Amino acid sequence: MRIAQVAPLSESVPPKLYGGTERVVAYLTDECVRRGHEVTLFASGDSVTGARLRPVCRRALRLEGAKVIDPLAHHVRMIEMVAREAYAFDIVHFHIDYLHFPVMRRQKITAVTTMHGRLDIPDLHAVHQEFAEMHLVSVSEAQRGPMPWANWVGTVYHGVPENLYQLRTQPGTYLAFLGRISPEKRVDRAIEIARLTGIPLKIAAKVDVVDKQYFEARIRSMLEDSLIEYIGEIGDEEKSDFLGGACALLFPVDWPEPFGLVMIEALACGTPVIAYRAGSVPEIIEEGKTGYIVETLDQAVNAVRRIGALDRKTCRRVFEERFSAGRMCMDYLAIYHRLCDHEPDLTPRSIVLSTAAA
Amino acid sequence: MRIAQVAPLSESVPPKLYGGTERVVAYLTDECVRRGHEVTLFASGDSVTGARLRPVCRRALRLEGAKVIDPLAHHVRMIEMVAREAYAFDIVHFHIDYLHFPVMRRQKITAVTTMHGRLDIPDLHAVHQEFAEMHLVSVSEAQRGPMPWANWVGTVYHGVPENLYQLRTQPGTYLAFLGRISPEKRVDRAIEIARLTGIPLKIAAKVDVVDKQYFEARIRSMLEDSLIEYIGEIGDEEKSDFLGGACALLFPVDWPEPFGLVMIEALACGTPVIAYRAGSVPEIIEEGKTGYIVETLDQAVNAVRRIGALDRKTCRRVFEERFSAGRMCMDYLAIYHRLCDHEPDLTPRSIVLSTAAA
Repeated sequence: MRIAQVAPLSESVPPKLYGGTERVVAYLTDECVRRGHEVTLFASGDSVTGARLRPVCRRALRLEGAKVIDPLAHHVRMIEMVAREAYAFDIVHFHIDYLHFPVMRRQKITAVTTMHGRLDIPDLHAVHQEFAEMHLVSVSEAQRGPMPWANWVGTVYHGVPENLYQLRTQPGTYLAFLGRISPEKRVDRAIEIARLTGIPLKIAAKVDVVDKQYFEARIRSMLEDSLIEYIGEIGDEEKSDFLGGACALLFPVDWPEPFGLVMIEALACGTPVIAYRAGSVPEIIEEGKTGYIVETLDQAVNAVRRIGALDRKTCRRVFEERFSAGRMCMDYLAIYHRLCDHEPDLTPRSIVLSTAAA
Repeated sequence: MRIAQVAPLSESVPPKLYGGTERVVAYLTDECVRRGHEVTLFASGDSVTGARLRPVCRRALRLEGAKVIDPLAHHVRMIEMVAREAYAFDIVHFHIDYLHFPVMRRQKITAVTTMHGRLDIPDLHAVHQEFAEMHLVSVSEAQRGPMPWANWVGTVYHGVPENLYQLRTQPGTYLAFLGRISPEKRVDRAIEIARLTGIPLKIAAKVDVVDKQYFEARIRSMLEDSLIEYIGEIGDEEKSDFLGGACALLFPVDWPEPFGLVMIEALACGTPVIAYRAGSVPEIIEEGKTGYIVETLDQAVNAVRRIGALDRKTCRRVFEERFSAGRMCMDYLAIYHRLCDHEPDLTPRSIVLSTAAA
């Protein structure tokens, strides 16, 4: 198939450091290429891909700092670039929320949009009701909760390349926390769990500008404990050691997590997950098999004490079966084919460009 | 004419407090209505207008605080609302930067967009080059500087209703600073001028969240001077007294000011303006007649000492001639007519809606 992937521009594809959406787009794109599809990737110019790259801006916008004042302008222009080339694709797969909906409505393009974010934001509902015909993919069943009426064409769980992380059969000696430090990710809960169990906690996480104040006011003082080691933001190459060396990943979130990529990254290393029940968690983690799902600090502490009962090889096997990039790619290809079969009249003549142009 | 005005949703039209763009949209809308035109205003639901209001959201998004997480979603939906009703208008006048360009390109609508912001932001240039056919209005000649190649159809200086501010023929005893406290508005320069001349300075200004740190680190300590009075953000009804009671408005900006509404508000009260040479300033202020244009602190101090030489009635007269809402409305109506005559085939049949809808 001729496939276009349209990524956000905040991070490169794949991202240098943190960046769930861009990471998933990278895995999906490379997997489609590997299977012989003709893929075009619309992304920042510093992206690295086996697909044909259509660079929209020079570098990931987040890395440009003060040089980028208006990131939206780049995304609006990207939509126009995609629309202009749309005749060359069988399907266009958007990963940029709703920004392209008005153009999609006016230009006959077979398209699908994966919703990567939380959908319990009231602002989103009116715009999705307006564009109720758009084909959407959820990344978990739970994510759909606030918008059951949308035109969902499937749920596709994220996947990670099988060779990216290695199974460590022997459990490590510490608990791991990986991701962002922000109120909804609840690193404070992870620290409490470490204190109550006496097991060391390593924290690899970034602090966004918007979360700086929260970090300084609520978290920094909690890090001054010999049990706690804060190592900052880490890249892909360090993650396998970091996650694989842990006896468990702590995922103590307190928000409707749409997916939670780090959970399957841990499983890929054979590391089970202790997660608070929220959002996608019950769909990703199998209780007593790949981790424990908890609702209180007591339950979390108890889960840490029982972590040795979980088989790390089983965690890896479940990862390979349910959360590989190959499986994700197959799921998306099935959706692409289904949508293309339903809309067989995608030909250049159906493209109406620039009627208002002089 | 059947006119649609499309306002930003951050503030109501008119805004409760600060908000230059929404204020200008309010004046223009009411003036068009007063002249017998059939005007529809797309704006936040708490707007107050003589036009037919099409409310997009319940309240001004800035006032909703944490309840609004994604303001963009409301603007995307507004563009769709406008497009759906576009057949009912002779002209659609946008005040929301570039967000509607992709839809305008695909739907035959006679439209014009006033650029309200600074254009020296590199992010903007690629998107404007992409949509080079869009009809743009600048609010000063200087504003066009970074984008001389755009499809400018006119410059329309802002205007303010003649009865909103009253002439005070007797000069007041203090210097005034009105607007935002932010690095580019340089309230620090205003404070220096007050100190060096020994004339009291009253500051009526808001501090945006993004400017809080600048305010605390750089400005707050400067306010602890008996010459300086900081009175916070004020509304329209207080402005006439505040500006009219001053001997001069200080406008010591250090950025390419696109227009600078407060300058003409001061003139409407008869209050001359001491402004730093930047952006629109030399187009708005007539040297030695309605104010002094300066480039250094010394020149600013000197200008304050000569302020009595300027005639307050002349300031008011120049305001009435050049910067009334009536004059602004006439300028825009001339542009509307010109664009409509050039595009005479605006009929319902030219509207193509929802080709992708089920």
